[in-house]
Amino acid sequence: MRMVDLIEKKRDRESHSKAEIRFIIDGYVRGEIPDYQMAAWAMAVFFRGMSLEETAELTLAMAQSGDQLDLSTLGGRFVDKHSTGGVGDKTTLLLGPMVAACGVPVAKMSGRGLGHTGGTIDKLSSVPGFRVELTQEEFLLQVKKIGLSVIAQSGNLVPADKKLYALRDVTATVNSIPLIASSVMSKKIAAGAQGIVLDVKYGSGAFMKTVEQARILAKTMVDIGKELGRQTIAVLSNMNQPLGRAVGNSLEILEVVDALQGKGPADLMEVSLELGGWMLVAGEVVPDVETGKKNLRQSLQDGAAWHKFLAFITEQGGDVQAVIERRLTVGPWDLPILAEESGYVQPFDAHKIGVLAMTLGAGRVTKESPIDLGAGVVLAKKAGEWVKAGEPILLLYSSNKEKLAEAFELAQNLTSVGSEEPQLPLLIEEIIK
Amino acid sequence: MRMVDLIEKKRDRESHSKAEIRFIIDGYVRGEIPDYQMAAWAMAVFFRGMSLEETAELTLAMAQSGDQLDLSTLGGRFVDKHSTGGVGDKTTLLLGPMVAACGVPVAKMSGRGLGHTGGTIDKLSSVPGFRVELTQEEFLLQVKKIGLSVIAQSGNLVPADKKLYALRDVTATVNSIPLIASSVMSKKIAAGAQGIVLDVKYGSGAFMKTVEQARILAKTMVDIGKELGRQTIAVLSNMNQPLGRAVGNSLEILEVVDALQGKGPADLMEVSLELGGWMLVAGEVVPDVETGKKNLRQSLQDGAAWHKFLAFITEQGGDVQAVIERRLTVGPWDLPILAEESGYVQPFDAHKIGVLAMTLGAGRVTKESPIDLGAGVVLAKKAGEWVKAGEPILLLYSSNKEKLAEAFELAQNLTSVGSEEPQLPLLIEEIIK
Repeated sequence: MRMVDLIEKKRDRESHSKAEIRFIIDGYVRGEIPDYQMAAWAMAVFFRGMSLEETAELTLAMAQSGDQLDLSTLGGRFVDKHSTGGVGDKTTLLLGPMVAACGVPVAKMSGRGLGHTGGTIDKLSSVPGFRVELTQEEFLLQVKKIGLSVIAQSGNLVPADKKLYALRDVTATVNSIPLIASSVMSKKIAAGAQGIVLDVKYGSGAFMKTVEQARILAKTMVDIGKELGRQTIAVLSNMNQPLGRAVGNSLEILEVVDALQGKGPADLMEVSLELGGWMLVAGEVVPDVETGKKNLRQSLQDGAAWHKFLAFITEQGGDVQAVIERRLTVGPWDLPILAEESGYVQPFDAHKIGVLAMTLGAGRVTKESPIDLGAGVVLAKKAGEWVKAGEPILLLYSSNKEKLAEAFELAQNLTSVGSEEPQLPLLIEEIIK
Repeated sequence: MRMVDLIEKKRDRESHSKAEIRFIIDGYVRGEIPDYQMAAWAMAVFFRGMSLEETAELTLAMAQSGDQLDLSTLGGRFVDKHSTGGVGDKTTLLLGPMVAACGVPVAKMSGRGLGHTGGTIDKLSSVPGFRVELTQEEFLLQVKKIGLSVIAQSGNLVPADKKLYALRDVTATVNSIPLIASSVMSKKIAAGAQGIVLDVKYGSGAFMKTVEQARILAKTMVDIGKELGRQTIAVLSNMNQPLGRAVGNSLEILEVVDALQGKGPADLMEVSLELGGWMLVAGEVVPDVETGKKNLRQSLQDGAAWHKFLAFITEQGGDVQAVIERRLTVGPWDLPILAEESGYVQPFDAHKIGVLAMTLGAGRVTKESPIDLGAGVVLAKKAGEWVKAGEPILLLYSSNKEKLAEAFELAQNLTSVGSEEPQLPLLIEEIIK
């Protein structure tokens, strides 16, 4: 088999056999297939797509390209959750303790993020002392003990995806449904998930700008899951508004702390309960999503989720007292954006709020960029809320005065107030399973 | 400017500015743009194509990426000729002396070929003592003295094309009209051509299988020539039958020797006169192609072309006596394929005859493969000729008995004889200028 012939096949609309997909992925990981052939192939895939059979085999080949986590020794049914990413998306941190409190263990490996804010791992790093790196033994032991651990993705999980994603990033081949879907699903499968709940977001603040694109991606991932024997459920959710009020690492942890104590913003709770409900269904502890949501609400009301979170922080070495007392570094510099008149706050552009958080230092521009964990934006008022003239709509935080000044300029045109109460779209569009 | 953004532009059907094309080619030659980005871009070009303006700028950027030959000091108008390649195509060797004898100097740099037989340079290497490598000074001096020199392409001519072609070869991006057209034209322009005559072949033995594809390629190259101020004329010629009777390096030189003495096969002469006629038009020594053809015929009849050829061989150190006496190495092993019955020889498949010559050792499988200069095929009978039972149709030559035996097997199904005289298509389909 020669790679040049396989590139030509894909270029000319022919399908790859399973053996051909394995040849491509295994050869690429071993360095026998050079980057330039892989790049040409990825571009051919961008134009020609892949069948479900091809995509499923690609997923499996990538999942098996490195270490695979075997959670079967722990007992229980492991359910993983993945979000395609959005502005202010901290659902993983909220769902971990809630779902674990309802009897489905969560053993999650998460990445550091490129984007408006850091990834889950960066957010957790804003808790003093919190260890994001555990040995595999420590990780599994903790899951066995308290049913919950979240750590940084370890060395040799899905090396094929790591290598291919880095290549796609610099060759304009990121935006291909089969490549996105196989990338996401390969990581979940390598991490040992038996059930997978996907939060596929669409809108201004999401990678997929339209609900149609998001639906195709969701359907592809659900089909891959079926093909590979993993129960997979996708929630299509709207990301035209930031989720919750906080965008930024420490700021989001503080919002999670509030939410676990029953004071979470409505939109964040609605999305989290929907995702969590399906996680409990996939974890086979409830018969349907409504029962799942009821159990999750119960875990908030009786403090079980909150205490699970504190146990989780404690186990991974975090300063639990600082969390309880909300003593995380925020700012220290801050500036409000005030309403010039009274009225209903009009919808934000989630993407622009993301860029604002990035400007303040909350996100990474390149993989090597440091993150300002205390930087970010708080939406003092969300779209549809009433604001009085002179009250703050946004609060900007940064450790860097110049960035704060730059963001302040940028924020001048991001807010508007009107006499009409805006109609906000449904938050949950559809469930695909 | 970032290459990833330019790949995305091309991927999304946007056009490149001249500055962007320069950025891509200059960056690639300098090694600042890596192969993997260039491969993704080439695949995007394969799918999206390029406008004439983009293709012309690509051609010019490649032509200017290394050394450029300045023939202006020699005086006269230089005309170059290029063939897209076919089985038994030895027109360059025939045309060089004929055109030079008619007053248009020929200063040609030629490549070693990958394909059924070697390139022009390999064919010339079968003349004992012939030097295919001259210094630039020797090359120009010889052109000044006798109006004709053909040498191997020197070190740093169109490095962009060399690098890009090697990459396209292994990434299934060869077959793209703008990339093929700019590759051909950049080499002609860097080599100092003021007029360019293109032999664009179509059919079984050509790179372009259909006349429609060939027409698009020809039109693209002619348009590039116009855009860059070089008179360019393309001849669309049929390559469903091998050109002439000989396919192989020494064998083709011997056929050229015959042809220059007025004993060339009709099809080879027809194509050569057409191309040569247009070369004289482009060289501005005749007012029209018919006058050009008349002059060329005259150069054959009065021996001027033949003596120009002998002077050319002499100047470049070749054994002119061996040429006159036809003492080139052929074979030494040979086998005929005989007619089983009498009748009209039916059309060959030119591609299969090419593969047969390759099997005998006449061509290169990879760039490093040695060539068996004495190997090849002679069509003792061409399509449409009458053969008697027991007479040879094909003659196979090789220095390797095993290859000869292998080719003999292969040749069993390549010939057929029938009672109907086959209708052969026109050899020259169209002139595009």
